[in-house]
Amino acid sequence: MEQRISLITLGVSDLARAREFYEALGWSGVEVDETYFVQAGGLAFVLWSRTKLANDAGVDNSDAEPSGFGGMTLAHNVRSRAEVDAIMTSAAGAGATVTKPAAETFYGGYAGYFADLDGHLWEIAHNPGFTLSDDGSLVLPDFSSGN
Amino acid sequence: MEQRISLITLGVSDLARAREFYEALGWSGVEVDETYFVQAGGLAFVLWSRTKLANDAGVDNSDAEPSGFGGMTLAHNVRSRAEVDAIMTSAAGAGATVTKPAAETFYGGYAGYFADLDGHLWEIAHNPGFTLSDDGSLVLPDFSSGN
Repeated sequence: MEQRISLITLGVSDLARAREFYEALGWSGVEVDETYFVQAGGLAFVLWSRTKLANDAGVDNSDAEPSGFGGMTLAHNVRSRAEVDAIMTSAAGAGATVTKPAAETFYGGYAGYFADLDGHLWEIAHNPGFTLSDDGSLVLPDFSSGN
Repeated sequence: MEQRISLITLGVSDLARAREFYEALGWSGVEVDETYFVQAGGLAFVLWSRTKLANDAGVDNSDAEPSGFGGMTLAHNVRSRAEVDAIMTSAAGAGATVTKPAAETFYGGYAGYFADLDGHLWEIAHNPGFTLSDDGSLVLPDFSSGN
């Protein structure tokens, strides 16, 4: 299995509403067969009916109205603290729930979290230790103290 | 907000066990401060304590032993049906639960799903309509019939 991810699909309860939310943040994609595809760097970010996604994956969707923690987060890293603040403000304005206001982090960065309209969690972070390439790719540091 | 994702973090109940699972599939990363980082194309794939992740995001983790559907899936696209079968077999051998055996898809591809040791869902897919670049990046087609 090569070390890469091709798509991230978020299950949503109302596709038009979810699409509108991400478009309000400046993203742009194409809707095909009730599925919204966004080219996000080297992968595709996809919005699809939560019920259809569960069915497609062969899992139970009896918790159709989930609450609490889904166990996975996405992060969007930016180049400055001001960008963190700007995106957190935009997201809140588009209807997101700020679950953690932007603040200093233990690693010397600055980050906040919001939940989108379906509860999917996004961290918006400025982490000086992680390089962002010109094309937006994130490059992990050489963790020389790691194992 | 630029159209890209920097990190995907999966909450796990046992980091060593989760790390071992992904290493059995051929992935390799670095563990720093009880966090496992993998460079996966232009983003980082991260394994971290589910409880710590929930706390970091400012959300309730009272459903500490989740069941059912987390509402999000990851996909790993490959270049042939044989690769789908090989990865599904490897994952099952490493302890994954096959939630949907690989089969023909409505879009003319071939795909299956498995849940990792913490229930995170992966689709392994061969989709002839989505280009995989030499570096593994996925490029969406020109959905000319889309809107």
